[in-house]
Amino acid sequence: MKKEFLLAPGPSQVPPETLLEMAKPVFHHRTKRFQNIFAEVQEGLKYVFQTKNPVLVFASSGTGAMEGAVSSVLSPGDKAISVVGGKFGERWSKLCKAFGVQSIDINVEWGKTVDPAVLKKELENNKGVKAVYVTLVETSTGTLADIKKIGEVVKNTPAILVVDAISGLGADMFMTDEWNVDIAISGSQKALMLPPGLAFASVSEKAMKLVNESKNTSFYFSFKKAKASLDKNDTAYTPAVTLIIGLKKSLDMIKEETIEKVWKRHEDNAAAMRQAVKAIGLKLYSQNPANAVTAVWIPETVDGSAFVKKIRDEYGVTMAGGQEDLKGRIFRVAQMGYANQFDTVVASSAIEMVLAELGYGFERGAATRAAVAELIKRGVK
Amino acid sequence: MKKEFLLAPGPSQVPPETLLEMAKPVFHHRTKRFQNIFAEVQEGLKYVFQTKNPVLVFASSGTGAMEGAVSSVLSPGDKAISVVGGKFGERWSKLCKAFGVQSIDINVEWGKTVDPAVLKKELENNKGVKAVYVTLVETSTGTLADIKKIGEVVKNTPAILVVDAISGLGADMFMTDEWNVDIAISGSQKALMLPPGLAFASVSEKAMKLVNESKNTSFYFSFKKAKASLDKNDTAYTPAVTLIIGLKKSLDMIKEETIEKVWKRHEDNAAAMRQAVKAIGLKLYSQNPANAVTAVWIPETVDGSAFVKKIRDEYGVTMAGGQEDLKGRIFRVAQMGYANQFDTVVASSAIEMVLAELGYGFERGAATRAAVAELIKRGVK
Repeated sequence: MKKEFLLAPGPSQVPPETLLEMAKPVFHHRTKRFQNIFAEVQEGLKYVFQTKNPVLVFASSGTGAMEGAVSSVLSPGDKAISVVGGKFGERWSKLCKAFGVQSIDINVEWGKTVDPAVLKKELENNKGVKAVYVTLVETSTGTLADIKKIGEVVKNTPAILVVDAISGLGADMFMTDEWNVDIAISGSQKALMLPPGLAFASVSEKAMKLVNESKNTSFYFSFKKAKASLDKNDTAYTPAVTLIIGLKKSLDMIKEETIEKVWKRHEDNAAAMRQAVKAIGLKLYSQNPANAVTAVWIPETVDGSAFVKKIRDEYGVTMAGGQEDLKGRIFRVAQMGYANQFDTVVASSAIEMVLAELGYGFERGAATRAAVAELIKRGVK
Repeated sequence: MKKEFLLAPGPSQVPPETLLEMAKPVFHHRTKRFQNIFAEVQEGLKYVFQTKNPVLVFASSGTGAMEGAVSSVLSPGDKAISVVGGKFGERWSKLCKAFGVQSIDINVEWGKTVDPAVLKKELENNKGVKAVYVTLVETSTGTLADIKKIGEVVKNTPAILVVDAISGLGADMFMTDEWNVDIAISGSQKALMLPPGLAFASVSEKAMKLVNESKNTSFYFSFKKAKASLDKNDTAYTPAVTLIIGLKKSLDMIKEETIEKVWKRHEDNAAAMRQAVKAIGLKLYSQNPANAVTAVWIPETVDGSAFVKKIRDEYGVTMAGGQEDLKGRIFRVAQMGYANQFDTVVASSAIEMVLAELGYGFERGAATRAAVAELIKRGVK
């Protein structure tokens, strides 16, 4: 008998309370009833984003809002800087190319994070850069960027700072306004505890100026249209009603727990997860690990693709494997959204069970013991 | 953020698949549609009971079918033997008293199981005993009775063997026909993976003779009426339709896993649970522990009622405390129904977290390590 534990770095687990909300009969969106909920959702999003800026909502995956943050903000021929240290950093660079924006890529070794001094230099060397595109949590490597320091570098330039916070928002500490982030992007299926299908973009005044000047022909992901609709407490195109209803519930849960405690919970679980894998001789992939997702080298003696397949299909615990060159060489386990200390304990034990089955030598139970000891030390409940 | 783990010895967890079935619109029970499902449920129950006898279904808790197994089977003035080694053995004796049946109680020290030789002697000393009432798994103490041996004692006497298998059925190995059990009672909220509300009673031909002779005035729990209705693929009174629908799903899941593997799963989890508590110096309460539920002494230095309250209210893991004299002195954790190895791991870690909080001294993580090591040793997946 298999139970499903969805511990991949998105989509992540959805609370039963939210699932039940979304199972209620659908109602029409051009109604006061929907608008009231949408207004509350807006307040909740601002709280999670830690911003006073409007947060645009799109019926799309996170990439949709990323596209808008390029196509709807810059114009063909504009210059931008993209920090590329993984699959999702690459996406910024590709989006720039797709919309005629000249991207100056800062390539960072996978698993490492960008040095703000390097970014500062690039900005000085390239006058006229209109936007800096970075990634809060690079999901492909489990690496956290120092957005606060990056914000301090960018804020005194004409460029806006655009952060892909899809995997990180609501997991790793993130302060849109205090950290001088002009556009923060997120999606529903990570720490916001929802199924995929919603994308978000907070937009500062500095960014809105670029939006209003943009000569690109964005339509669905037009920040201008989305902002105009939002001012009327509405969306430009049909909203994903059930997901918005679910979002209301998830945001209420975050507000009740408080965002500070949500960050702390992710920090505690990530710390316990790291202790667990280290205790049986595994190594972390990232040199600056995020709390949202932990990337771990699979021992060379172990069949890496069998690991990810087995733990999902035979043990019911879904983790992600590596991408591109890392395929079969790392696994990635999320501490994301609706995950608490018992998910960390389950993940640790499942990792052990599969490694034992695949012939890896280690002290049975040692990973899980380390996780439990760390959780107890931190007084997690 | 708290997640709920219902690891009490009933009610137990209900699979999401079953919950979804029960959430579908209710339909009328006097229909071919319902009768078809009821017929399939009957076959499924026979499989889980391991019997060719009919299995009566009542809309009640398990105690309802226990009542019927006295009131509807015996007559005032009849003699019976009740094995009393806990709260639920006591219930047999009380039911006998309530319906004018003279119960000869075999008192067994709590935590121990009845010696079949003692029962044999009592049957020899008390001619005319019409029924022997025993308990498969005494939930109050986590103790398993040797029903197979008891069946060998009773089968050659005029008495019928009645087994309260409410907590045990579908958890600990139980073979109604092969073990010569005339009436086996169960309920929906234990290893059958349903909410409370259904009671079952398998009835042998030997038992049906007594039913037909009974002079008691049972009505709702009349086995005679229930049997007559069942012969027409029906129930005497309005069935609990949604629970029957859910039962169909749960029985399908058991059939798919096979009853042998279901028993093995409970055995593996119980073994791991026992290793876990022993590893941090805790002692088992029962001298013949069942697989369905593990009763554990709470260390004397620890506030026992705080333990049960904290683990439920603060950690979200529901276990049961002790009853009567054992209140505040033991906890009882179930490996019952929809519980797999990860529930055992979660239970072990939660026990550690609470004990640490309550000041008990032990190697942090050692219980959970022992559980994981035992599960790996057993190749559980």
